[in-house]
Parts: sequence; structure tokens; C-alpha cells
Amino acid sequence: MSHQKLKVAIVGASGFTGSELARLLLNHPDVSISIITSESHVGKPFSDLHPQFFNRLDIPLESADQVSKMDLDVIFLALPHGVSMDFVAKWKDLGAKIIDLSGDFRLSSKDVYEEWYQKKHSYPIGFSEAVYGLPELFAKKIADARLVANPGCYPTASILSLAPLYAKQLVEEGSVIIDAKSGLTGAGVKANPTTHFSNVNENFKAYGIAGHRHTIEIEEQLGGIAGSNTTVQFTPHLLPVDRGILVTSYAKLKTEMNQEKLTEIYAEYYQDKPFVRLRNQAPGIKDVRGSHFCDVFPTWDERTQKVISISVIDNLLKGAASQAVHNMNLMFDLPEATGLNHIPLKP
Amino acid sequence: MSHQKLKVAIVGASGFTGSELARLLLNHPDVSISIITSESHVGKPFSDLHPQFFNRLDIPLESADQVSKMDLDVIFLALPHGVSMDFVAKWKDLGAKIIDLSGDFRLSSKDVYEEWYQKKHSYPIGFSEAVYGLPELFAKKIADARLVANPGCYPTASILSLAPLYAKQLVEEGSVIIDAKSGLTGAGVKANPTTHFSNVNENFKAYGIAGHRHTIEIEEQLGGIAGSNTTVQFTPHLLPVDRGILVTSYAKLKTEMNQEKLTEIYAEYYQDKPFVRLRNQAPGIKDVRGSHFCDVFPTWDERTQKVISISVIDNLLKGAASQAVHNMNLMFDLPEATGLNHIPLKP
Amino acid sequence: MSHQKLKVAIVGASGFTGSELARLLLNHPDVSISIITSESHVGKPFSDLHPQFFNRLDIPLESADQVSKMDLDVIFLALPHGVSMDFVAKWKDLGAKIIDLSGDFRLSSKDVYEEWYQKKHSYPIGFSEAVYGLPELFAKKIADARLVANPGCYPTASILSLAPLYAKQLVEEGSVIIDAKSGLTGAGVKANPTTHFSNVNENFKAYGIAGHRHTIEIEEQLGGIAGSNTTVQFTPHLLPVDRGILVTSYAKLKTEMNQEKLTEIYAEYYQDKPFVRLRNQAPGIKDVRGSHFCDVFPTWDERTQKVISISVIDNLLKGAASQAVHNMNLMFDLPEATGLNHIPLKP
Amino acid sequence: MSHQKLKVAIVGASGFTGSELARLLLNHPDVSISIITSESHVGKPFSDLHPQFFNRLDIPLESADQVSKMDLDVIFLALPHGVSMDFVAKWKDLGAKIIDLSGDFRLSSKDVYEEWYQKKHSYPIGFSEAVYGLPELFAKKIADARLVANPGCYPTASILSLAPLYAKQLVEEGSVIIDAKSGLTGAGVKANPTTHFSNVNENFKAYGIAGHRHTIEIEEQLGGIAGSNTTVQFTPHLLPVDRGILVTSYAKLKTEMNQEKLTEIYAEYYQDKPFVRLRNQAPGIKDVRGSHFCDVFPTWDERTQKVISISVIDNLLKGAASQAVHNMNLMFDLPEATGLNHIPLKP
Repeated sequence: MSHQKLKVAIVGASGFTGSELARLLLNHPDVSISIITSESHVGKPFSDLHPQFFNRLDIPLESADQVSKMDLDVIFLALPHGVSMDFVAKWKDLGAKIIDLSGDFRLSSKDVYEEWYQKKHSYPIGFSEAVYGLPELFAKKIADARLVANPGCYPTASILSLAPLYAKQLVEEGSVIIDAKSGLTGAGVKANPTTHFSNVNENFKAYGIAGHRHTIEIEEQLGGIAGSNTTVQFTPHLLPVDRGILVTSYAKLKTEMNQEKLTEIYAEYYQDKPFVRLRNQAPGIKDVRGSHFCDVFPTWDERTQKVISISVIDNLLKGAASQAVHNMNLMFDLPEATGLNHIPLKP
Repeated sequence: MSHQKLKVAIVGASGFTGSELARLLLNHPDVSISIITSESHVGKPFSDLHPQFFNRLDIPLESADQVSKMDLDVIFLALPHGVSMDFVAKWKDLGAKIIDLSGDFRLSSKDVYEEWYQKKHSYPIGFSEAVYGLPELFAKKIADARLVANPGCYPTASILSLAPLYAKQLVEEGSVIIDAKSGLTGAGVKANPTTHFSNVNENFKAYGIAGHRHTIEIEEQLGGIAGSNTTVQFTPHLLPVDRGILVTSYAKLKTEMNQEKLTEIYAEYYQDKPFVRLRNQAPGIKDVRGSHFCDVFPTWDERTQKVISISVIDNLLKGAASQAVHNMNLMFDLPEATGLNHIPLKP
Repeated sequence: MSHQKLKVAIVGASGFTGSELARLLLNHPDVSISIITSESHVGKPFSDLHPQFFNRLDIPLESADQVSKMDLDVIFLALPHGVSMDFVAKWKDLGAKIIDLSGDFRLSSKDVYEEWYQKKHSYPIGFSEAVYGLPELFAKKIADARLVANPGCYPTASILSLAPLYAKQLVEEGSVIIDAKSGLTGAGVKANPTTHFSNVNENFKAYGIAGHRHTIEIEEQLGGIAGSNTTVQFTPHLLPVDRGILVTSYAKLKTEMNQEKLTEIYAEYYQDKPFVRLRNQAPGIKDVRGSHFCDVFPTWDERTQKVISISVIDNLLKGAASQAVHNMNLMFDLPEATGLNHIPLKP
Repeated sequence: MSHQKLKVAIVGASGFTGSELARLLLNHPDVSISIITSESHVGKPFSDLHPQFFNRLDIPLESADQVSKMDLDVIFLALPHGVSMDFVAKWKDLGAKIIDLSGDFRLSSKDVYEEWYQKKHSYPIGFSEAVYGLPELFAKKIADARLVANPGCYPTASILSLAPLYAKQLVEEGSVIIDAKSGLTGAGVKANPTTHFSNVNENFKAYGIAGHRHTIEIEEQLGGIAGSNTTVQFTPHLLPVDRGILVTSYAKLKTEMNQEKLTEIYAEYYQDKPFVRLRNQAPGIKDVRGSHFCDVFPTWDERTQKVISISVIDNLLKGAASQAVHNMNLMFDLPEATGLNHIPLKP
């Protein structure tokens, strides 16, 4: 690590991932925030949008146009799907590495993207360059990447709940059910009936049944690990909490299994992954809130002969902002845990 | 219906089902509450335990010993598992009909009970007499019953999510996953770490993985409907809300299916069931809160060739107290909806 | 009471008070809902906007233009401030009585209104006709009214917390502080940053400091009771709950006081008011949720020589919809509690 | 600051302040946690009690008896009131400095303590030695202290909301009302009806009306600042959130005032206090959650001629654990912000 701090841009300041990136990067010892952009709030102090930063990060927001005029090491794109791709195309020769937190480069190809996102892709060449930024699986490729597609929140939790089984090709195809539950911040900062307090509080419901976009992202990654195509049933639900994803994954296996063997498979797979914690009891989302941890808890049900694997993350951190910082650490050869050692905030 | 009101006893006043029974019965036009018992609060006004009843139901709590001295039509047992059975045994010749809200007589036999509840059963003869009180399935048998075993909350939602498929013997054995989520009142009124606000609020977790007692209750009833044994994977989770259960059930079928046919199967099965609402969009738990409704929403996923069937209930009502009142209405030949026409309280 | 049911219109269906009115009126034994209007949803079933009514109230929404063509006994205006006044003007000769749930006719005059609402008033003559619809204070005048201004939610709780002291002219002028806390439904159904889940959940803040419109409504009514002008300090806060207002009122008195005397003053004032409950311990908002009760708890602090009077209501019911129904009962000479006997929904 | 880390003990590990102390001290660059004690959990890993620490702080809990055998620089007492005093007495000659988070040494004398806590004090000599640990007021005395009485959560927020006015002797005696609202963690980790989820969630109520112990702590400190006795009306309420205190303080002044002058008085008083943020809009508790900030917002109401001053803190941090760490920094001549630069966790 040089004494020169990394100069970073955060593009897209109004959302939750933008403010979480700022929070993490502000206290990161090797980073200096050069610019934060927001087209609709140019000139306003960042802390006007996010009052928790009052007195700590009051720099004025700028237009994204300014980014190309600056000397930057890394650009974080905290933009909606369908918007990121244009900036990636525009800034591909700037010299700065790009970490894209949208879904624009997470899938394998233009065709798959356009089918699942129902949107034209404007920079298909990016698919070949982009590396899927899940450090537990692709640390080496990430280290060499110039463009990282930061994973979706549900895919992060879902993939980590099942990866050890797919890696050993143990999963019976067609048997996987991923029943996922997310806090409301996953629905974004925009005010609409979905995010209205009275529709969320004391409520719980499923959405995107049989068609959520994260399905294909999970299938491509799990299939890639196993070396063969896979189809999963993925159902997301909306929890009346701010943060957290809990995924309950079910699978039949091709071979015999018992609890001890199952635990061993997971322990081995995650042995050098400092942010995956193999738990000895069912984890709650609050056990990881405010942290970069993914807690995993696999159970073998002898009676039904199935695996039930539960994983939890903070959707804004391991599911977005801290994962992006983890990727940055890898891309710039910093110790991977730098700036990420938050103990979960509980209660 | 005679002009004579039914004289009822509520045995066990301190819990949530006790107070919900009181709330429903107090406004039921054909009922007069004769006695409410609580061994630990004898002499105290009922409203001391449940201040929402202040000025409306201040009668002093009595000992259960008083019940046998009274002229009663029906006794509601709102007692813990393992306690109810003794009262059923003791009061079997009183003349009053008994509706037991505990799990003591829900299963098929002493042996099954003792395996899953890890407890000696003191009145095994009750199993042959007890009728499983799910009105949508057993209205006629309930009408003739002297002892009704009021169903568990999870089983009510789970069974109603899948019954139409089991009734037509469409379900592929071994394929059923029931991923269930319940509000905290399901954990009871007792103060312990599980019910401490800070462990529930902003949290979400699974419990009873691979071994919850309600599993066997669901399996026995669904198997009974189909006429053959069935095994299901049942996983409950704890929601940070007061009330509500949402069940997401998954099944493979033995035959071809499409959405239209699936909807038709459900519509037909529930056509004369006033409290099951076949919804045209994914229901939330708040859509039924404070009411006796069970909302059901079945989806056929053409891509995965699976059924995803979602159902929601208020766990304290359709999952306990209002179900008990529904059973009472059937047992005494009252119109089945009497006293149960609450519109859900939303927001 | 005649056997002819009252024919009612609900004008403004999309908000919370509209749906709560529908819920109460649907189960009111002497009412038939003739029409529900919503300009932006004409033709849609009411239950599309409020799915809790699915299968129970699916009638299509109509335009307010239809109201004048119908034979109606009473019109409920569940409209925003500034909109109601035009309909009151337009329908003044229809023959139907009008209960306006907005703030348009709650104050004493056009001038006061225009100062506090910063809006031109289009029908100032209405001020002289309108009766302030707080049944505990003005039951007789309400019975004779053709136009009732249904009180604000904060004023209802605030006035009832202090009325007995003002009625006896005991309050030292300038000493009254009303620190009020309301659930989020008070902020309305509209999606905006204020009602976004993430801004409300786990949060709490004051708003409208030193200038909230309800201040003058409280001052005019309390002053009216005492027969002299009064100024109060009123500060509202936003609670992370759906329903409920709790008001903590502080006052110095002109005379000596003790707890016994204070309790007696309140008991006497509210002795024939069935929906005000003088509690013997500090009430919580959940003790009245879903009901028409206002629970009041006055304390004399001997050490500081001040009164602390706490009151709680359900802001959508006693603070809006059930108060309107109570007023309707009085206006049509029905027993005042008709259709209002809900026990609070707790937990 | 030497390179030698401070060796610290946390006495009392099971509560929320114990775990928050551990979280802060674990990431404090100049601290090494030598021992954590819990009499009821000796031998268990700390992370068994607080699973958020899994893999990060798994050291076994020890008995407090071990403390006196160790070489320690500072001992944090995270114990209940009435228990701390015995340990302070016992360990007074150990050489380690003591920071007591209980209420045992916050007041001026044995007599005052015994009147308000209704408990015998076993170590009255401690009152003369103890320094009240509010860094904004007493930084210099804290730096020299051997025993610090860490302030109560309500007093911290209350005192900081009014200190600038008392310091200038502007407050009209007898006029101060402090209406305070706290998250549930203020009620402690113990499971009882008060902390049961169903009594807190969607609820809100006052408690300790006219007699809460923090009243005298506030009065003694504010009186001390002004140099004369003061009496305040203090009413705490319980919020359905985990963390956060918001205090709404009201005062009449002896002199003329306007908004500009008021803001200036506060700005001047807090100019060198890095953790008090004088806000330009009403703060919410979430603006400071997870941080050491106290946000203050004073308003002059020209109409009523009163000050309304709002302050917010995280009750577990600025109201307990981070305040204790701040005190430690001062006592050991570390830069006062060391280990305390957390940006609030929002949303």
C-alpha cells in the first residue's frame, strides 16, 4: 500500500448505496473522496440529502460531467439499472477503474440481460470485460479487473448459501428453492406506494413471484460454479425492517449426506473467507446489521433428506456498498479487510 | 337459534388467545360470557391484565375450579399444550362442549403426540373423540362434535394453501416446501429472550428448523385429504410484527398444469367458504389483520414447472380465536359468520 | 330509529379516513353506503384501492359529480383541506347533512383560517353554520347541525386532556405546554419523503414547531370552554407506528390542587361520556387502537405544582372516522354508541 | 499517547452497555480488552451472549473476582444501580481508574441518592471523589479524575438541550418542562412485561411520571451550571424503537430573545465541542444512531415567548458507552475523538 490515498468518485449520491459508500469511504484509511455527484442536487451539500453526515461530509454535490475532468483511481457507480451502462461506455478510457453497483453488467450477455431486464443494452462489449464482484468466489479475477459488476443483494446471499454444494456438484437439478426476505431499503429511496410506511410496517408480502431479475443472476453464478446449467425457484418477500436479507435455501442432493459432513463441506469452502461466518445456530439479520459479514447456517434434515441452508447479510453492505469496497481493496492490492471491520450494530 | 344466549367459559385469560376470545365473544350477539379463569390472577378484574378492556369487561377472574359448578354451553380452553388435556379429561361429563385451542388433541394418536411433543399424554381416549376444527374442511363433523381440537396457526395457513391440490391428488410426494413466517404473538405472552423487543425488532430469523411440531399436524391433515401419507418440509420464521402468518408453499405436480387451470381448482374448492378469499394479487398479512379471512394466491411457474401458493391469516384469529368462534357457531347451529364479520384493520 | 337505513356518501375514497369510514359504515346497522367517490379512480372497485375490503366492498368508485343526483341523508367529506369548502358550498341545498373531516370549517372565521392555513377561503358563510363536532363538548348543537366540522386529530386528544380544567377556569394563562406524538397515518396516504418507510421506521422527530395549524384549533376550543382567550405551546412529533396519538399536556393552576381533587374534577366532567375512559394508570396508544375510546390520565405533581395530563386516541378513529360516525349518530338521533363498540385491537 | 495500549476491563457483559463498550473498545486503536466479566455466564464465550461478535470476540467470560488480580489501566462498570458501588469500594486501591456507567455516583450526596433511589448507599465517600462525566461540561475535571460517574442517558440529552441557557442564567425558574422519549434499550436487557415485543411495538406511553430518578440528576447539573437551585418537570416516554432519545425541552426566559440571538448563544457554547452538532433543522433520532453525536436544535417561539430546544442522542452511545470511552480518552490524555468517529447508521 502506497502512502498516496486512492482518489475516488461516488456517482449517484441520493440513494442508500451512495450514502453507505460515502460512510465507508470516509473512514477508509487509504481513500480520499474526490467527488460525489447527483444531477438533481448539484451545489447542495451532501449532508443536506443525508443529514447523518452533517459536519462530517458537507462537500457540495457536482454533476457527473465533472468526473471525466478529474484524476481518479476508482469510480463507484451507484446508479439505477439502465443508467450505469452509458457511463461505463463513456468513461471506459479514463484510466480509472470502475465498480458498478447496478445490474447492468452482472449477467453473461446482452441477450440474457435484455430478456430479463426488458431493456436495450447500450454497451454490450462490457459483458466480456466485466468481472462478477463476489470476492469469496472470484478474488483473483477481481484483482485484475478494470470493470467490476458488483453483485445483487439477493444473489450475494443466495449464492453464498449454496455455493459449497454446487462447487462439489452435489445438488439435484430442479430441486432448489430459494425463499428470500429483504428489508425495505432494497426497494430504494424513491417515495411510492411500495415504500410508504403504512404499506410496509406490520406487513409482509411476496413480490416478483416467478419472474424476479435476480433469478437469472443466481442461476448463472451457481451454474458456473458447478459447470452446468441450473434452474432455481426464487421468491423474494418484503420485510418491515430497514436492513437485512435472510435467504432460506432448500435443495435435494445426489448423494448421501449427514449433518457432520455437510458442516465440513461448508467449513472447507469458506475457510479463508474472513467475512463468511459459518454459524452454529440459526442467524438473524440483526446479527450482521451494519457489517460486511455473511452468516451461513446449513442444516441436514434426515427426515426429509433435504438441505436447508440459511444465510443473512446486510443488503446495503455485503449486498452492495461494503462489497464494492471489498472489491476496491482487491483491485488495488490493499489488505482485503481494510475499512470493513465493523462489528454489527445490535440491538 | 334460540333467544337464549350461549353461556361460555374462557379458561386461561392471561394469554393473547384468551383476550382475543373475550374480544370476539363480548360482541357476539348470541353469547354471554359466564366466567373467565386465570389461576395466577384470581380476583383481579380481567381488564387489569388486558387494559384495552377497561370499562368494558371488568369482571373478576376466577379459578378453573368454578367451571364445573356452572351451567355452561361451551368451554374454550386457552391453555398451554400439556395442560389442556387434564381439563378435557376432568370436564368430559359436564355437558358443555369443549373447544381446545391447545395442541393436545390435534394429532391422530397418543403415539404421534408423544413423539412430536415429547410429553406423556394423560387422556389418549380424547383423540378418537376430538374433531379437527378446520371449518373449510370439516364443517359437518365439527357440527356434531363435543370436543373440537382447534388447529394450530401455521397448520391453518399451510393446509389452506395446498388443500385444493391434495384433494385432487395432484402433488408429487416429497416435493412440498412450506416456508412460513409468523408475527411475534405466535411466541406467546411470556417474557423471555425470544420475546424481548430488542431481539425481535428489526430482526428476522428461522427457528424450529427440521423439527417444528406443526410439521406433523400439517402432514396428517394434508395426507388425510389426499388419502395417502405425505411428508413436507416446514420451516417457520419469526417476523418483527405483532400479528400475521404468511406461508409460501412450493409443490411439484404429477400432471400438466397452467395458471388458468390452477386458479380454477382453487376457486372450485373454496367456492362456498366465505372466509377464504382467492386473491388476484399477492396478499400481505396486513390485508387480513384483525379479521377471520384467509387470503390465498396460487401461482403456476411455467419456467420451473412448480406451484407457488401463498396464504395469509391473522395468527390470533383465523389461526386461533376466531377459528374457535367459527367452530362454536357450527357446533350450535348458528349462521357460521355470526360475530366474525370484521373488516381487516389496515393500516 | 326507523327501519329505513341512512343513505350515505363517502366523498374521497383514496385516503385513510375514507377507508376507515367505509369500514365503520359497512358494519353500522342503520347505514347503507350509497356511493363512494374518487376522481382519480372512477370505475375501479373500492377494494382495488384498499385490498382489505376484497369480497366485502367491491363497488365501483364514482365521480363526486354523481353525488348531487342522488337521494342521500348524509355526506362524509374525506377530502384535503382547501378542497372540502367548494363541495360544501356546492351541496349546501341538497338536503343531505354534511360531515366535513377536513379543517375547512373548524375555526371561528375566514380571517383566522386564512392566517393559519395560508389559503383563501371560498365559502366563509360556512363558518357560522358549522358546528364543531366534538361530541363530549357539543352533543346538543351537533344534534341540530346541518354542517359538522369534524375536529382535527391532535385537537381531539389535546382538548380532552385539558377541558375539565379549562371548564372550571383553573388554568394559569400562558402555562400550557402540549407535547403531542402521532402515528404516521396522520401524515396521509401520499407517498413522499416524509412517509417513506426508511425515514419513519426506527426514527422519531418533531415537526411544525411553533406553527402547526392545530394550535389555533386547540386554542379556540379551550378558550371557548373557559370563556376567555388562551395561548398554548403545541409541538407535534412523528411516531414510527401506524396509528395513535398520545398527548402529554402540562399546566399550572391558579388554585391549590391535589391528586384526589384533580381526579374528581375529571371524573365529574366525563361522567356521562361513554367513550372517554378515565384511567388509573398511564395509558398507551395501543390501549385504544382500533377503537373510539379516548383514555385520559391526569397527574398532580406535588413537587413541581403542575398538572401532567395524558390522553390517547386512535388518530384515524376518535381523531377522524369514528368521531364522524359518532356525529352522524347524534345528528340522526340514533343511540350515540351505535356501530362504535369496537374493543381495541391489542396486541 | 504511548505505544502501550490501555488494558481495560468490562465488568458486566450481559447488558446492552456491556456489549456496546466491547464493540467500541475492540476497534479502539489504543485499547486492549483484558477481561470481560459476567457472574452468570463464567466460561461462556462473550459471543454466545452477543452473537454479533461471533468470530471477532469469542473470549471466555470471567468472574469479577479476577479483576483485582490483573494489571489494568481502566475498569468500566456496566452494572445495575446499587451493584456498582460495592465494586468501586472494593477496587478503590487497585490503581486502575474506574468509569461507572450506573447511577451510583452521579448525584451530589448519599442523602440525595437514598431519597431518589430508595436504596442504602454503601460507599458514600465516593460522592466526593467522583466526577460527573459529561465531557462538554467537565472535560478538565474528567482528565484528572480517578472515578468518573458516567451520566444517565436522559440527563445527557436533557442537560445538553438547555445548558447554554442555564450557563447564562437566562432561564425563568419553575418554567422548564422536559418531555423525553427513549428507545426500548433504555429499559435494559431483562425480559419482563415492559420489554415484551407486544407491549412495545406499535405502542407508546409515558412512565415514571412526576418521579423518575433522572429528574434530580438533571436538576443538580443544570442548577450547578447556573449557580442556583432549579426544579424541572421531567416526563419520560417509551418509543417503539431500539435506540435513540429525543428530548423536547421548554423554557421561559428572564430576558428578551429572538431566534438569531438564541442560535448564537448555543453556537458559542458548543463551539469547540466536536460531538455536539447545532442543527439547522429538527433532528430525528436516526440522524445520530450508532454515533457519539448529540444534535441540538433550539427554536424561539415569538408568539408564545418560549424556547423549545430539541436534542437527540443514541442512548446506548452518547447516553452510555461512547460517553464512557470519551471519558477514558480524556482521563488518559488521548485525542478526545479517538475511536469515536462513527458516522450514524442510517437508514
